[in-house]
Amino acid sequence: MPSRRDLANAIRALSMDAVQKANSGHPGAPMGMADIAEVLWNDFLHHNPANPKWPDRDRFILSNGHGSMLLYSLLHLSGYDLPIEELKNFRQLHSRTAGHPEYGYAPGVETTTGPLGQGITNAVGFALAERTLGGQFNKPGHEIVDHYTYVFLGDGCLMEGISHEAASLAGSLGLGKLIAIYDDNNISIDGEVRGHGNVSGWFLDNTPKRFEAYGWHVIPKVDGHDAAAIQAAIAEARQVTDRPSIICAQTIIGWGSPNKEGKEDCHGAALGEAEVAATRERIGWPYPAFEIPADIKSGWDANNKGARLESEWNEKFEKYRAAYPELAAEFERRIVGQLPSDWTEKANAFIAAVDAKAETIATRKASQNSLNGFGPLLPELLGGSADLAGSNLTLWSGCKDVNVDGYNGNYIYYGVREFGMSAIMNGLVLHGGFKPYGATFLMFSEYARNALRMAALMKIPTIFVYTHDSIGLGEDGPTHQPVEQTATLRLIPNMQVWRPCDAVESAVSWKAALERQDGPSTLIFSRQNLPHIPRTAAQIEAISKGGYILKDSAGTPDAIIIATGSEVELAVKAAEALTAKGKNIRVVSLPSTNVFEAQDQAYRDSVLPPSISKRVVVEAGVTDTWWKYAGSNGKVVGLDRFGESAPAPLLFKEFGFTVENVVANVEAVL
Amino acid sequence: MPSRRDLANAIRALSMDAVQKANSGHPGAPMGMADIAEVLWNDFLHHNPANPKWPDRDRFILSNGHGSMLLYSLLHLSGYDLPIEELKNFRQLHSRTAGHPEYGYAPGVETTTGPLGQGITNAVGFALAERTLGGQFNKPGHEIVDHYTYVFLGDGCLMEGISHEAASLAGSLGLGKLIAIYDDNNISIDGEVRGHGNVSGWFLDNTPKRFEAYGWHVIPKVDGHDAAAIQAAIAEARQVTDRPSIICAQTIIGWGSPNKEGKEDCHGAALGEAEVAATRERIGWPYPAFEIPADIKSGWDANNKGARLESEWNEKFEKYRAAYPELAAEFERRIVGQLPSDWTEKANAFIAAVDAKAETIATRKASQNSLNGFGPLLPELLGGSADLAGSNLTLWSGCKDVNVDGYNGNYIYYGVREFGMSAIMNGLVLHGGFKPYGATFLMFSEYARNALRMAALMKIPTIFVYTHDSIGLGEDGPTHQPVEQTATLRLIPNMQVWRPCDAVESAVSWKAALERQDGPSTLIFSRQNLPHIPRTAAQIEAISKGGYILKDSAGTPDAIIIATGSEVELAVKAAEALTAKGKNIRVVSLPSTNVFEAQDQAYRDSVLPPSISKRVVVEAGVTDTWWKYAGSNGKVVGLDRFGESAPAPLLFKEFGFTVENVVANVEAVL
Repeated sequence: MPSRRDLANAIRALSMDAVQKANSGHPGAPMGMADIAEVLWNDFLHHNPANPKWPDRDRFILSNGHGSMLLYSLLHLSGYDLPIEELKNFRQLHSRTAGHPEYGYAPGVETTTGPLGQGITNAVGFALAERTLGGQFNKPGHEIVDHYTYVFLGDGCLMEGISHEAASLAGSLGLGKLIAIYDDNNISIDGEVRGHGNVSGWFLDNTPKRFEAYGWHVIPKVDGHDAAAIQAAIAEARQVTDRPSIICAQTIIGWGSPNKEGKEDCHGAALGEAEVAATRERIGWPYPAFEIPADIKSGWDANNKGARLESEWNEKFEKYRAAYPELAAEFERRIVGQLPSDWTEKANAFIAAVDAKAETIATRKASQNSLNGFGPLLPELLGGSADLAGSNLTLWSGCKDVNVDGYNGNYIYYGVREFGMSAIMNGLVLHGGFKPYGATFLMFSEYARNALRMAALMKIPTIFVYTHDSIGLGEDGPTHQPVEQTATLRLIPNMQVWRPCDAVESAVSWKAALERQDGPSTLIFSRQNLPHIPRTAAQIEAISKGGYILKDSAGTPDAIIIATGSEVELAVKAAEALTAKGKNIRVVSLPSTNVFEAQDQAYRDSVLPPSISKRVVVEAGVTDTWWKYAGSNGKVVGLDRFGESAPAPLLFKEFGFTVENVVANVEAVL
Repeated sequence: MPSRRDLANAIRALSMDAVQKANSGHPGAPMGMADIAEVLWNDFLHHNPANPKWPDRDRFILSNGHGSMLLYSLLHLSGYDLPIEELKNFRQLHSRTAGHPEYGYAPGVETTTGPLGQGITNAVGFALAERTLGGQFNKPGHEIVDHYTYVFLGDGCLMEGISHEAASLAGSLGLGKLIAIYDDNNISIDGEVRGHGNVSGWFLDNTPKRFEAYGWHVIPKVDGHDAAAIQAAIAEARQVTDRPSIICAQTIIGWGSPNKEGKEDCHGAALGEAEVAATRERIGWPYPAFEIPADIKSGWDANNKGARLESEWNEKFEKYRAAYPELAAEFERRIVGQLPSDWTEKANAFIAAVDAKAETIATRKASQNSLNGFGPLLPELLGGSADLAGSNLTLWSGCKDVNVDGYNGNYIYYGVREFGMSAIMNGLVLHGGFKPYGATFLMFSEYARNALRMAALMKIPTIFVYTHDSIGLGEDGPTHQPVEQTATLRLIPNMQVWRPCDAVESAVSWKAALERQDGPSTLIFSRQNLPHIPRTAAQIEAISKGGYILKDSAGTPDAIIIATGSEVELAVKAAEALTAKGKNIRVVSLPSTNVFEAQDQAYRDSVLPPSISKRVVVEAGVTDTWWKYAGSNGKVVGLDRFGESAPAPLLFKEFGFTVENVVANVEAVL
């Protein structure tokens, strides 16, 4: 029977061999954390390789995602559908073993990691989802949601600011089934983080003390190469369920490599053929590359245990179903992310009601109204704001806060933690069971930007809500006035950005975001009031296409005015003024360029006929992205400079967002 | 003689009155921190209102920038050129009292704050600049650089992740003359951060313990309304010079407002006329709005003390000049940010040498060569990387690290702290005496994005260096492959982005960044080798215009191929192939669209004649921003999706970055 060390060495061998074959990758972390991973996966982790989507599995997240070969080794060894050929194709085109773990590629990868600090933050989202879902569905004697979230992280994750946001909030929320294991190896890419010789260190934190300050249960100074010590630490962490646990495991990076262990050399490059051979010798691993002896493979195989665990859970769930048939059905609906059967009908009825009401309100208020309209239909909504609930208007009548004492809420006070909130939301989505939305001022999308990108990359439907969308924010001034943010968000591949112009477009935007399954949405709302624009039923229907004709001319248009959000009103008024002067003017509202561009050519051409090249685009933001629409004969009325601090109406006038100026620009192209 | 409380109440009155008049702003923080500010400014702060640019003044930074009226009150009361009319015009168009403190508007504002957490991080930069400049210039008995950096911050700053990065690095570097004062008032916008009634809190950190974990000197539980306690705390903090100090001052937000103090109501809105009147009564301030009695104004006036302090420093500096005339002249040069007199000549000689060498190298290596070329000319360079020195190639032969024991270095190991690094660099620039540059992978510009925007907004010449600029990064995969980042960085107003195509363009980009005075530069470099492109002297000269004709056709061009960075090689080869087919093709290299667009119309038209509308743009990134150049008759060869994990050459081929595809696109427009 293989020893624990033999089992761990299988990870080391696969990792160093795959990196060597690719001549690219990170052997240090997998070799350093192999012993820890072996104990966690073989003694504790509840999972079933045959069904990576079993809802109540423990979640395992590798926040130090560069150590991807650790995860691929674990998935392969424990029996996931990740054959050895995939490990041999590590980092090659069209393989499932990408350089960093990519969600949707290899089975069992719970989230895409690599951008440091976001994995631990996703993990907070997973743990929060587990507790909240349990709060909503569990009944006495029926704990159908009851799993741990384990996360590995390194010095890099802990240096990143987002680790503070995540850990502080996890501590405040008391997420007791979150267990983090810190790979304390004293090495980052630039060398020894605590200094060496003449170079003093750049990361001298007392990390245990730091996490105590967050209210975590801290297990310091665990020997990360002593299986018994690791086992005891994880067992202890599992017993403490009123606060998250962190196990500070002291390890040697690249453990087993005779000349490179403990040094940054083994962090991010292949060891080299000679060193790989020397490591084989040193750790007693006489097998050829990518060959795992049967007894070691068998020692790792988690299929039987996994099948048993899932089967036990299935029995538990069937008892739950017998006792609470409606809740069981609802649980199943939510886990797969299906909308309720009456969704479309009721959502459309709400939109029709909004249209009938014809209110002049800020679109942030229209957003809140949408939440009040759609919220009662969707118990999976899990809202929040980064300390701006009253400004973002993210609270709706059915909100109940999620907190340390109340687990069944649907609203999270995220605090001033934009990046943390966004990456936590990604974790909530990935866990399943929730449709999270979270808000801040549009400007501070910048603090969170890479989490938005990660949602787009993972093709997950996180909903990012941003208010105070332009110079219309007014007196808070240029630090808070978005000018380039909407344009830059639209450039994230697979992101759908919506900037609605009134309450009706706001409701349709929300509906689109709630229905989307294959990527995130960004909803951008105004601080200031915007008038209701009358529309036909066909026009309301067309909003969901991202762009449509809002006002058409009697004959063939002489020119088209294209606008979004608060500038649509200007476009409509300019068109009226020009019509009075005998011009044929079409107004196109483009609440979502991303969605509009996904329509077929025929539809796009019907809205923006290629033959009509006299076009003026109006948006209170940077102009560069709009020339695609304005064309060589067109003009863009925008703002290619920072704003100023002043009341909003004065700013719009100061920067040329007036009917007169739009008219002048149209006349200039005619 | 007015009491300390009377002096502090002048801040309270001015703040509540200005916010009331504007009907917009944040009275809570100024009223809560007035007593602390009064002690700091009247008992400790070394400054001279008559000369806000005195090099050795103490720096005061309001990280909780929404409390701008606190700072404006202090500047007005202590005698800066900020008359009462400006306070009456708080938050109005063209006033100097913007909603948040804006650098360059009111005198004495050291940095623009408002985006939370960045002020404390700028402050770390100020303190690091002070110590490093002192390390480079001070001599025994001649401490010409010797000042404190004081920073106020609130709960919001401490929740933000960047506060962790800043505080952790400040602790690791032992920045002993940094003194932070935490406004511990238990209130953020959503309410009581430590919870209340049924709502549990979202910020339960033990902040003193957290800062102890960073190695700070912590003074906990100071009564922020007890002048003697505050005075003792600041005096104690000043005595501890081997590590930064934080004073945790317990305050009541909106102190003095009978019905709103201690509540979030007074955080971000005017108190209301009635409450303003009630506050006047409560605090014993019988004077009309904006009127300060003479004895109170006199109690605040810092002109005499300031003149004396600066005069003493001037004497000290003259003694230094007598002893070290060359160093004194160099100090003066560096403080005003002037380049050495031989700069242009030597920099151009270096560029000529790079051209003569004609090397095929990665532009990140060309960047390092540029540092080796320019570095010896510029002792003001202060480099660094967020834990990627060996990848970003930011170390050059003259580098010596700045650390806790060695104060006279010129290189900082920032650790994995991209946002922190960037905002610290802004602080270094604002302090004066340095030209900082800092690097990470281009992807992780996203972690730091708002600090780049702040540099652009403040018009300060911070240099942001990014390597691994495209799918050319290869195997690390889509999490690390920039696709949209270059485009989005170009959209920041006043940012100059450079993406050079070879070693010569790299050197010219560096020269432009080093010469720029009125805004930041972003330098974007490849991981992979790029070939040298031969140029005439006139072409080399033209690189600094941001765009120029790299290869022209014999006759009038049939088409223009526009490219940047690694895709210029493709453009040149495609042009050669098309020329062989009898086409007249011009190739335009556009290393900086931002700089090119600042050229006059005649120059731009000479490079891209409006009459030639058949254009193809090639860049391995998102395409939307390029239609401005391609025009309605053109095409863009780009990448509107995420990359994949694979060796770089395969990826370029996979995504159509081949000579054949560029040729096909040109033929399609012809």
